[in-house]
Amino acid sequence: MSALDNTLLEDILRQARPLIGQGKVANYIPALADVPAERLGIAVCTLDGTVYQAGDAEERFSIQSISKVLSLTLAMTRYHESELWQRVGKEPSGQPFNSLLQLELEQGKPRNPFINAGALVVCDMLETRLTAPRQRMLEVVRSLTQQPEINYDRHVARSEFDHSARNAAIAWLMKSFGNFANDVPKVLQTYFHYCSMTMSCVELARCFLYLANHGRSLGQEAAVLTPKQTRQINALMVTSGMYDGAGEFAWRVGMPGKSGVGGGIIAVVPGEMSIAVWSPELDGSGNSLAGTAALELLAERIGRSIF
Amino acid sequence: MSALDNTLLEDILRQARPLIGQGKVANYIPALADVPAERLGIAVCTLDGTVYQAGDAEERFSIQSISKVLSLTLAMTRYHESELWQRVGKEPSGQPFNSLLQLELEQGKPRNPFINAGALVVCDMLETRLTAPRQRMLEVVRSLTQQPEINYDRHVARSEFDHSARNAAIAWLMKSFGNFANDVPKVLQTYFHYCSMTMSCVELARCFLYLANHGRSLGQEAAVLTPKQTRQINALMVTSGMYDGAGEFAWRVGMPGKSGVGGGIIAVVPGEMSIAVWSPELDGSGNSLAGTAALELLAERIGRSIF
Amino acid sequence: MSALDNTLLEDILRQARPLIGQGKVANYIPALADVPAERLGIAVCTLDGTVYQAGDAEERFSIQSISKVLSLTLAMTRYHESELWQRVGKEPSGQPFNSLLQLELEQGKPRNPFINAGALVVCDMLETRLTAPRQRMLEVVRSLTQQPEINYDRHVARSEFDHSARNAAIAWLMKSFGNFANDVPKVLQTYFHYCSMTMSCVELARCFLYLANHGRSLGQEAAVLTPKQTRQINALMVTSGMYDGAGEFAWRVGMPGKSGVGGGIIAVVPGEMSIAVWSPELDGSGNSLAGTAALELLAERIGRSIF
Amino acid sequence: MSALDNTLLEDILRQARPLIGQGKVANYIPALADVPAERLGIAVCTLDGTVYQAGDAEERFSIQSISKVLSLTLAMTRYHESELWQRVGKEPSGQPFNSLLQLELEQGKPRNPFINAGALVVCDMLETRLTAPRQRMLEVVRSLTQQPEINYDRHVARSEFDHSARNAAIAWLMKSFGNFANDVPKVLQTYFHYCSMTMSCVELARCFLYLANHGRSLGQEAAVLTPKQTRQINALMVTSGMYDGAGEFAWRVGMPGKSGVGGGIIAVVPGEMSIAVWSPELDGSGNSLAGTAALELLAERIGRSIF
Repeated sequence: MSALDNTLLEDILRQARPLIGQGKVANYIPALADVPAERLGIAVCTLDGTVYQAGDAEERFSIQSISKVLSLTLAMTRYHESELWQRVGKEPSGQPFNSLLQLELEQGKPRNPFINAGALVVCDMLETRLTAPRQRMLEVVRSLTQQPEINYDRHVARSEFDHSARNAAIAWLMKSFGNFANDVPKVLQTYFHYCSMTMSCVELARCFLYLANHGRSLGQEAAVLTPKQTRQINALMVTSGMYDGAGEFAWRVGMPGKSGVGGGIIAVVPGEMSIAVWSPELDGSGNSLAGTAALELLAERIGRSIF
Repeated sequence: MSALDNTLLEDILRQARPLIGQGKVANYIPALADVPAERLGIAVCTLDGTVYQAGDAEERFSIQSISKVLSLTLAMTRYHESELWQRVGKEPSGQPFNSLLQLELEQGKPRNPFINAGALVVCDMLETRLTAPRQRMLEVVRSLTQQPEINYDRHVARSEFDHSARNAAIAWLMKSFGNFANDVPKVLQTYFHYCSMTMSCVELARCFLYLANHGRSLGQEAAVLTPKQTRQINALMVTSGMYDGAGEFAWRVGMPGKSGVGGGIIAVVPGEMSIAVWSPELDGSGNSLAGTAALELLAERIGRSIF
Repeated sequence: MSALDNTLLEDILRQARPLIGQGKVANYIPALADVPAERLGIAVCTLDGTVYQAGDAEERFSIQSISKVLSLTLAMTRYHESELWQRVGKEPSGQPFNSLLQLELEQGKPRNPFINAGALVVCDMLETRLTAPRQRMLEVVRSLTQQPEINYDRHVARSEFDHSARNAAIAWLMKSFGNFANDVPKVLQTYFHYCSMTMSCVELARCFLYLANHGRSLGQEAAVLTPKQTRQINALMVTSGMYDGAGEFAWRVGMPGKSGVGGGIIAVVPGEMSIAVWSPELDGSGNSLAGTAALELLAERIGRSIF
Repeated sequence: MSALDNTLLEDILRQARPLIGQGKVANYIPALADVPAERLGIAVCTLDGTVYQAGDAEERFSIQSISKVLSLTLAMTRYHESELWQRVGKEPSGQPFNSLLQLELEQGKPRNPFINAGALVVCDMLETRLTAPRQRMLEVVRSLTQQPEINYDRHVARSEFDHSARNAAIAWLMKSFGNFANDVPKVLQTYFHYCSMTMSCVELARCFLYLANHGRSLGQEAAVLTPKQTRQINALMVTSGMYDGAGEFAWRVGMPGKSGVGGGIIAVVPGEMSIAVWSPELDGSGNSLAGTAALELLAERIGRSIF
């Protein structure tokens, strides 16, 4: 087993880099399609706040669906457990990430908060209880990362909104089943802003340390979540965090994780560390191809797995 | 946090017992419907072989789908990884446990080895490579438990075979896609015999200790599986071990587990202990209702979770 | 066989009336739920313009999906065959009338122009080519019926728009597949206005005489459609005109027909007559229960069937 | 409009022949794949028994699913209407011809008797009421055609049985829902024998004259079906006789018809004539490509359509 340090991370990136070229950069909006495919970064943050990093770990990218963990975290602090989970489930979908099929069969209740439908319901709930949900999210993330300049990429958010037909269909379908309270375009705007946040691997590792640290972030008095809530989110990430590739990811990497189509993945070793990787090319399930490989290598080299 | 001992287990059963009456005993075959609903047992086996137990922990019951972990284990020792996983997937199904819908859409490749379709493919593979797959399974289980009298319940096996129309449909559908090599009734017979094995909680806890112990069972020279294979099975149990309730189980219990419609559940704390519970009444997803509650209580009381 | 006259029609209504009470008035919008369930009317128009009638044949009601035949007729006069049918199919759906399931599996191309999705595409096409699609439809219907005061029920149209979540979902889903060109709310408005048109059985029978008369309406110089186009619409009505009850309707009635959830049905005996019936209570497929029975009785009594 | 005679039929075949090469001969069993693609025949039988023909109208071929009309006819003479239609529906499937998806969603009741599932249920019902269902079918067909040497092609029947996995899956699925009474392999054998019958266009046209003639066949005292039953079968053929291409066939040809993957199609003009065409290459829906075109040309040339 290897010690965790920058050299190890560099070594891991060296091993993962040859995979670049075998995946596909997300291209459903131009803003994402333009990201250079050869970017590759990794950062690890341990419980004491030490950060190890390698490659393009300080370059910001679009966190996309990684934001679904943040919106769920926010909702868990504003809603009672029973309110939240009557509107969204906790089970893996067994379907591509934006299918309407299942949503219709299951009467407008999304399977979990990490598929688009589920995250839209969560945003709808935030819209109801927060006066300024976009501003509030920025405050949370800036506080978790101690980086006051983290922001939305309004160009990406607008571009997503311009290509939002399928997400609009999902939201309207939920509305038809009575599971969507607010104005559809308004919630879509919030949702796409959350997706458009740009953060680096270093910032993401710091941001999600609370998931490795029983709900506590660095240098903050108040806990973000209770230890139990933290375990719950980690459980949900293992079963549903990687679109339709959660089983494969658990099998290979053995950590709770959440990916975004921007090529980022965050993962945690509970009680030890949070990790962020970035490589824009995706595999068939929509998860970063080289990023997953880097996490698998890291898990092997440091001998960590929740299993 | 409480120390693990018989008193703790008895206390947990006392708390879980009031749930009896809120679930439903499986009744698709008469032999299962006749099991007394008030049975409740638990057993824990730690890495050194110590067994703690409470309630009806020594009464044998039909292990049903828990056998799917054993058939997969056997297949992993007889097939190369690439051979095995080209015929069955690793992803949660997001569907009730014996649906043909998904199997047809996905061209006859079952989502994972813990749904009926997947376990049937695994049995088909064992049929190909083992000369006496039923006898071989008994040898494996007798060796793992050190109980030479563990056996099939031929009455249950026959009864299942007499009600096997849906499983036959599943097998024939896979055959139509070229993913089933042997005679359908022959493989069904093997499959139902595996399901009909009767074991007690104490025997199950001992049997599955290898999943908590890096692949090694008690008092056996040779490892059952490699440490990596063991982690892989545990990963698969978390994402797919509880039919369409895997997400909820991970959320509440936080351990890899596998259930059977006989009301048994096995679970492991990797590196520490294996656990078996039994209560015949099932929840809406087909998992033991009081059994799940007992595992949740145990996890809380001893402060264990993989998350 | 009986001669066609008012007495026959009255006799038929007498036989059909006892069915009232066994169906259900559509209640998804209040404006429809309020229609008195005991209304029952029938009108027949022969090629020479003679009208026979009985019961509430002159009371206007919401024609709802019967308007889908009119929007298709209009589209067939404004689009070349190949343009039209590349955006909508000609096959029965085998599904309830507003399912998204099939639409997603078939990449946003609706099965036929008589399900909601298909009619929405047709309205989208009319929006593209007509400067005032709502006004134009009124002109067409007023001309076909010679009743200049036929109009939309703006109360019903508004009420439908207020409950349009599912149709919005359908339109957005088609947009996500590139099969919807115009602004969704604008097209929905047009669509709901068409549905909200109020006409009586007598007016409907006159209106649809062109389908019995090789495309020609009464007292108009120019044909509405060519004889071939007329046969095509009749064919489409037989295979897809009655939601998921087209097979049963063909079996029992043996005429091309189209129903609406307002309880109206129009039908034709090609080369002989057009028929309209009205009874607000619907059967399980969404077709007028007593209305279907009246048509079946009429077909038997006058010995007419296309089969 | 042209007069119906052999010259007209030859002219039609000349026009349709260039389509040969654009379809695909069924190849799921070797016996069908070997049929020469360039075969093309047509025969028409008028109510007085006159037969017109052109091309390969006297060469026998495998009638395949055309036999589903015969097994339904036979069942309608042995079962009361209510018994028959509680086990099989009357609606188009909106699905490829051998899908299990819909059958599972609809609890094992096939949509109509012309898809495989429905025909299997019909054969299961014949198995229950007939002592020798294969022999009885031959007697019926020999009597209808006055050709005592019509027979099964046992080579084809055996080949189908050897490739019957999907049909076995369908039958077992229905059995799991309680909608299949007899031994699955036994019923499959009967079903495949029916499919394997070999007949020529001339024989088919004669055989199905009863569908054009109010249920009466040539030179037989007793009617095959009542006039009402005859209309019912014709209705069912229009809505469900052409797999997932019934809408298109009604649109283009305008006659009740039933196709088989051997490349044959039978069609009727009620009250006038029965028609059979043969061309082995199929279109995307599984219907004879040139055969459909020939029927469309015939309908145009003689000016016949039920619409």
